[in-house]
Amino acid sequence: MIILGLDPAIRTTGYGVVEMLPGKRAKILDCGVIKNTPQMPHSECVRRLAGGVRELISSFKPDCASMESPFVGDNAKTAIILGMARGAILTALAENSIITYAYAPIVAKRAVTGLSHARKEQVALMMANEFSIAVSDIPDDATDALALAVCHGQKALQCQIDLLGKPL
Amino acid sequence: MIILGLDPAIRTTGYGVVEMLPGKRAKILDCGVIKNTPQMPHSECVRRLAGGVRELISSFKPDCASMESPFVGDNAKTAIILGMARGAILTALAENSIITYAYAPIVAKRAVTGLSHARKEQVALMMANEFSIAVSDIPDDATDALALAVCHGQKALQCQIDLLGKPL
Repeated sequence: MIILGLDPAIRTTGYGVVEMLPGKRAKILDCGVIKNTPQMPHSECVRRLAGGVRELISSFKPDCASMESPFVGDNAKTAIILGMARGAILTALAENSIITYAYAPIVAKRAVTGLSHARKEQVALMMANEFSIAVSDIPDDATDALALAVCHGQKALQCQIDLLGKPL
Repeated sequence: MIILGLDPAIRTTGYGVVEMLPGKRAKILDCGVIKNTPQMPHSECVRRLAGGVRELISSFKPDCASMESPFVGDNAKTAIILGMARGAILTALAENSIITYAYAPIVAKRAVTGLSHARKEQVALMMANEFSIAVSDIPDDATDALALAVCHGQKALQCQIDLLGKPL
């Protein structure tokens, strides 16, 4: 099973593509960032996010996707812009019939480190160990996306149907 | 010049397609609603919104689009969902190289009725008069979309470059 983990934001969307192997082991296929400059209008940002996700789908044929549950802060202006990034990405996934499961950040962190409030460096260290790669091979902004992919993979492989994230 | 006016929301997106004729006159080509049921998951809603906008683009070949400026209320949860609808729609427009201009609701209302705080029925009445159709021919949720299209058309035709909405 191949899982596309995504950590969406309008300027910097992290992604991680992971293949789950028998016995809860995970193999990394790719990780990186879809980057938009601060100067780009929102229309160009969403176009590039949807296009980037389509390229990942075409390259890796993921079976499903894993994304953070929408983070609801108290800033409606930030929320509407984050929503635009999520909408563009979710459109590209849905148009390719890829189901997207949502996990709260603490759930993903606990799944990969055992700690609900692990720091990003701890998550990166566990990911590097899981994939037998150097921590420096994981871009900062791709760390959470990889954790989201592995989190979903673990729950799906263990058939923990009741623990699966909510499909978006 | 053909303008696609859009009033996005995740469950009910109103649209109006308007052709601007010489002398500030506008001709209606179509208006209606892209409707999603309350039961549909968000992934299906954004897929249908983007698909619906693509169909309108393909049918009417609009030169540009006109949308409400993002309404920033104080509810971040609502804002993120509205953002998703806007992101899906803006992706479909940007992928077709259609520039989208944003207008505040009071600007669009003033443009078509002369009143910044006109009620929806007043806007519908002015639109019906403008297009020489019956008010009942305009679905409630398409009224604002038509006003947004006409608002942009007036400003563009009069070459009021400094009054044009902000491109999204």
